[in-house]
Amino acid sequence: MHGLYRLTMPATCQRIVLASRPRGTITPENFRLETIVQPAADSLLEGEVLVKNRYLSIDPYMRGRMSAAKSYAPAQQLDQTMVGETAGTVLASRFDGIRPGDQVVGRLGWTEMGVVPGDILRRVDADTIPLSNYLGAVGMPGVTAWYGINVILHAQPGQTLVVSAAAGAVGSVVGQLAKRKGCRVVGIAGGEQKCRYVVEQLGFDGCIDYRQSETLEALQVSLQAAVPDGVDLLFENVGSTIFDASLACLNPHAKIALCGMVAAYYGGAASLVNAGKLLTMRATLQGFIITEHPEIWPQALEELAELVGSGLLQCHETMTDGLASAPMALIGMLQGQNLGKQLIKLSD
Amino acid sequence: MHGLYRLTMPATCQRIVLASRPRGTITPENFRLETIVQPAADSLLEGEVLVKNRYLSIDPYMRGRMSAAKSYAPAQQLDQTMVGETAGTVLASRFDGIRPGDQVVGRLGWTEMGVVPGDILRRVDADTIPLSNYLGAVGMPGVTAWYGINVILHAQPGQTLVVSAAAGAVGSVVGQLAKRKGCRVVGIAGGEQKCRYVVEQLGFDGCIDYRQSETLEALQVSLQAAVPDGVDLLFENVGSTIFDASLACLNPHAKIALCGMVAAYYGGAASLVNAGKLLTMRATLQGFIITEHPEIWPQALEELAELVGSGLLQCHETMTDGLASAPMALIGMLQGQNLGKQLIKLSD
Repeated sequence: MHGLYRLTMPATCQRIVLASRPRGTITPENFRLETIVQPAADSLLEGEVLVKNRYLSIDPYMRGRMSAAKSYAPAQQLDQTMVGETAGTVLASRFDGIRPGDQVVGRLGWTEMGVVPGDILRRVDADTIPLSNYLGAVGMPGVTAWYGINVILHAQPGQTLVVSAAAGAVGSVVGQLAKRKGCRVVGIAGGEQKCRYVVEQLGFDGCIDYRQSETLEALQVSLQAAVPDGVDLLFENVGSTIFDASLACLNPHAKIALCGMVAAYYGGAASLVNAGKLLTMRATLQGFIITEHPEIWPQALEELAELVGSGLLQCHETMTDGLASAPMALIGMLQGQNLGKQLIKLSD
Repeated sequence: MHGLYRLTMPATCQRIVLASRPRGTITPENFRLETIVQPAADSLLEGEVLVKNRYLSIDPYMRGRMSAAKSYAPAQQLDQTMVGETAGTVLASRFDGIRPGDQVVGRLGWTEMGVVPGDILRRVDADTIPLSNYLGAVGMPGVTAWYGINVILHAQPGQTLVVSAAAGAVGSVVGQLAKRKGCRVVGIAGGEQKCRYVVEQLGFDGCIDYRQSETLEALQVSLQAAVPDGVDLLFENVGSTIFDASLACLNPHAKIALCGMVAAYYGGAASLVNAGKLLTMRATLQGFIITEHPEIWPQALEELAELVGSGLLQCHETMTDGLASAPMALIGMLQGQNLGKQLIKLSD
């Protein structure tokens, strides 16, 4: 049949790119869902791996990346696949030690499939621990909590620890690890459900619902009542008024792990009125970002996997379905709608 | 001469007591000058020493003690001699190792004479170094600077250090020690005279006059121009807007020695708008009060004495005469009127 050729429709998959930078609050219009040609197994280069993502991780730091402002990491590029941790199944591999069918954790971003160098993937055992947990308590959020508790705060028995965003992916692990160290743990969270969760399910000694306090003064009074002996250790995820309330309750020589100031994503400047307590209480504060401490990841992950595998560390997940739900899941998480780790489920 | 007795007028001396607690700014009425019976040499108990003060030290921390608010030290008691470091001459002693004529440093407070246990006095060599220097560069302010530079900041060659209240007793030593470590040093001070002093006399690489900047934004712009490579080390004495400007210029992994927030004595809360930089720059901050670190005093004092004695460390003093001048000297110092160490001279 001269002159005729066969038209092959290439297989496609979907991804989400950053369409525009937010001004203040993120909106769904900052993102764009795109259909792209599916990467083909037979086009892999030496060392590359083709992964089908099963879970996307939704994390607060993503808000920071969406801005062009200088921060601890380069800004997310416009029109490129949104950054993010992922867990999935290997479809094809030209990397020694990774085979089709392996479960891997990586940073493929908001896409259903992707090709990456094999050396940035981490093979995980999804038989003893659910794959999704490797994005939470046995992943970056868990290691973040572990680093704060063990390296910055050196939590000791009998100390009082306060953690904000207590029901979130990081905070929930912080509190559980601190309890295991023999600390008295009080959380700060938004809403009665979260407070009940961390006390009843996770074993915290108390939890303050910041939504019940309209002013800093009211929040301070509530927190002071919950920590009558003051705060020895503070793991701060939120900043702003919530940070200020904890500062007001600091004990002499208190230690602070400054992990996040998510409140600043909404109110502009991360203003503090009780900064003077850092001096009068001779506090030590350390800001940190866990990707800068790769040396502690192996030990942290090993300990966290053991705790989760043996049921000693709980990791609640808030799961939404489908790639297209990612923007709203991020928006919701920044407003505190999730309980535990926020994930997107792409496939079984 | 029956019925007649000889009236002996006891010798007297003067002291200043705290008459009332200030509301905001200190006023002279917060103090009261009293004439008291001079302590007698023949009434000394075993272990006690009678000292005639020659110099009183005037320090920012005194403002904090005048308030009843909880801080790192107990409040100054009303109607009691104002606290403070002193340097003087021993008049009589029942303490082994201290003899009349010895020059000693102690904490006798705002009084011309006093009796104290000998074990809280420090004998000093006033032949190689002027006695008054033991209240400044070779005393608490010098040790404060030494601790910040060596223990908290670990100043290294090539790093950029910023110090506020640069022309003060602590700041002037901080900058000189940092220069000796090979740092690039930029000060922040109030007024052209102080800025010229730290650059021309002390060898700082630059100095920003905060009085030339009406807003935080203007101060940030000035400071950024003076530290084009950013701030690696910050020795903070002032707080508030001045602290905020330095926070805005922090480099990644910057270290901060938080020594004072004297600005808070005037504006109420020590509010910070750039606290978010502590996180985004992964800064480490340590608030400290030097009296809590007695273990480093001997080494620090030895090194400082050697530097001052050999002319390698300059220590300018602002001296006012007479006990009665102490309240105004303190008020003036808190407003930044002094250059270098503020002292009261009681006698030669």
